[in-house]
Amino acid sequence: MTDHEYMQKAISLAKTAKGFTSPNPCVGAVVVKNGAVIGQGYHRKAGLAHAEVEAIDDAGPDSAGATLYVTLEPCNHFGKTPPCTHKILQSNIKKVVVGCNDPNPFVNGGGIRFLEENGVEVVTGILKEEAEILIEDFIWYIKNDKKPFVILKTASTLDGRTATAVGDSKWITGRASRAFVHQIRHEVDAILIGSGTLHADDPSLTSRIEGLETSDPARIILDTHLSIKENARVLTQKSNAKTIIVTHLKALEEKRAFFEKKGIQIIDVPLKEGRLDLNELMIKLGQMSFLSVLIEGGSTVAGAALQTGIVNKVLLFMAPRILGGSDGKPMFEGKGPKLIKDALELKNMSVTRFENDILVSGYLK
Amino acid sequence: MTDHEYMQKAISLAKTAKGFTSPNPCVGAVVVKNGAVIGQGYHRKAGLAHAEVEAIDDAGPDSAGATLYVTLEPCNHFGKTPPCTHKILQSNIKKVVVGCNDPNPFVNGGGIRFLEENGVEVVTGILKEEAEILIEDFIWYIKNDKKPFVILKTASTLDGRTATAVGDSKWITGRASRAFVHQIRHEVDAILIGSGTLHADDPSLTSRIEGLETSDPARIILDTHLSIKENARVLTQKSNAKTIIVTHLKALEEKRAFFEKKGIQIIDVPLKEGRLDLNELMIKLGQMSFLSVLIEGGSTVAGAALQTGIVNKVLLFMAPRILGGSDGKPMFEGKGPKLIKDALELKNMSVTRFENDILVSGYLK
Repeated sequence: MTDHEYMQKAISLAKTAKGFTSPNPCVGAVVVKNGAVIGQGYHRKAGLAHAEVEAIDDAGPDSAGATLYVTLEPCNHFGKTPPCTHKILQSNIKKVVVGCNDPNPFVNGGGIRFLEENGVEVVTGILKEEAEILIEDFIWYIKNDKKPFVILKTASTLDGRTATAVGDSKWITGRASRAFVHQIRHEVDAILIGSGTLHADDPSLTSRIEGLETSDPARIILDTHLSIKENARVLTQKSNAKTIIVTHLKALEEKRAFFEKKGIQIIDVPLKEGRLDLNELMIKLGQMSFLSVLIEGGSTVAGAALQTGIVNKVLLFMAPRILGGSDGKPMFEGKGPKLIKDALELKNMSVTRFENDILVSGYLK
Repeated sequence: MTDHEYMQKAISLAKTAKGFTSPNPCVGAVVVKNGAVIGQGYHRKAGLAHAEVEAIDDAGPDSAGATLYVTLEPCNHFGKTPPCTHKILQSNIKKVVVGCNDPNPFVNGGGIRFLEENGVEVVTGILKEEAEILIEDFIWYIKNDKKPFVILKTASTLDGRTATAVGDSKWITGRASRAFVHQIRHEVDAILIGSGTLHADDPSLTSRIEGLETSDPARIILDTHLSIKENARVLTQKSNAKTIIVTHLKALEEKRAFFEKKGIQIIDVPLKEGRLDLNELMIKLGQMSFLSVLIEGGSTVAGAALQTGIVNKVLLFMAPRILGGSDGKPMFEGKGPKLIKDALELKNMSVTRFENDILVSGYLK
């Protein structure tokens, strides 16, 4: 097997834990000796062992003289666990192959330098892009003043309609697309919708994947007028994550007290042009250690998110259907630019099929 | 080489002439002997030799004992040229491999039976689907009372907008997409737009492919009020195809006479709900031997075409851009269905990339 193949194995291991490790990134590692994988591991959860430690312990004393493949630069500082660089030296690993560097500007390359200074051979940049995509939310968060990585998801017809004129939207997209959305929900820290969607659909916003343990995202409801009903599913259901209501200071004291008494967290953000300021909200969510937020609509919130410029990545699911009129609900409400050249442009766009649906994904930043 | 590979070669030959052969289908043929292609040909233009004749003549006397691969069942009737089945017998071809049968219900299988009855071995259905797609317009036309095969093309952002709020649409899609549209224009018999697009863009609607001879489609302009300007590009430019104006009986006699004097053909169709009846128009165009019509919009005509149910195939070009508001021009004007389940469903959908653009194509019938 080649360096790339061992790194691919480490990436696959890391992926198993994506969704469970926040606010840490997911990381995977394998220990290889004489062409055989003799140890493997991944970071399972914040507070538990790092991937390198798991893999080295899995290999045991045979680690001496072996090569460690790890998706992210080993840490070199004392946090909740001792630095992985020390563990590597103790185990007499002779070579470390790294996917991507630690994005933290104070660390970036520091772990690698420490290893090299202590006689360990280090190779970097193996499957760097894949290793970075794996933790793109973490990298963005660290490099951008702790602002969350925002993913905007839509489900529309091919002519850009998310519902018919009378609001019918079930189901535009198919089973495979919806299953993938549950995977994304599991991977992100929070999911955000507006009160319009809440009242229309009374969604649960949990992550449900048959046969797999999942981590629900925190549910964040934009609710300017604190109009949410006490029996809304997001408040009453069983879930391993909390629901947060976002409103503004003028929201009725009485209602506010009612929800707070029930343990529902309420965040205040100022209004901007009559709407809850999404930029301010993202700053607050970042401070609360939400590294990633999935916006699931509806079209008012989705439009506002695009117009505010908070969106990093879009996931546009399209069903193989055409509504064929202009009376259906648009993907995005609000004002677009006057010139095509000022339209938002997707970078690194990719197109995937989910049964008969198409997923167009790409980056705005 | 296998039967499939020889047939693929015949299909490729046929494709070279697509756009030049109407009202005949494009057909390709190769003659194979001892594993070598000894003759090849394709139908170049109505009135000229059929593909089989070209290929057999190319092979010469060596055809005796050879195998003929042909994309469409050989004809068995005297038309502008003698029947190909006779040519095959005369050449002592011993085996014929056929892509698809002649769709004409009076012919279907007749050519094959005649050959078999005269001692020629016949194999059918090799790359049948590809051979049928190649002449899908012809097959549709023959099987559906001479109604044209209608292709609807749109160019939009990923959120289904064909222009900004102020009408800017140049260029939503990129060079590669636009080049492919010129290929389609070359392949179809006619191209149809509404007077809105005519007035807004003053398009030429010709097929321009660098370094290649092309066949312009007839330009069909829906113009209820006969509002087209005398200096419109579709009327004044040089082109190897004609411009036809579609209006209704009440259009001003005076204007009508003016255009007719200039050699511009005018077709009358009745109004239906205040609009030119597209169903009636398609019947008339079919009678005029237009086998295929490409609708290039704008959104009023495109919406009306979908709602009338005349569209066979859609080509939805999408640029990697998002306008992100609801004020841009929609892909389709008019009323859509109330329920998602009544939306038009694409069959055999395929997704292709043209540089950064996406082409979603599929069939509605």
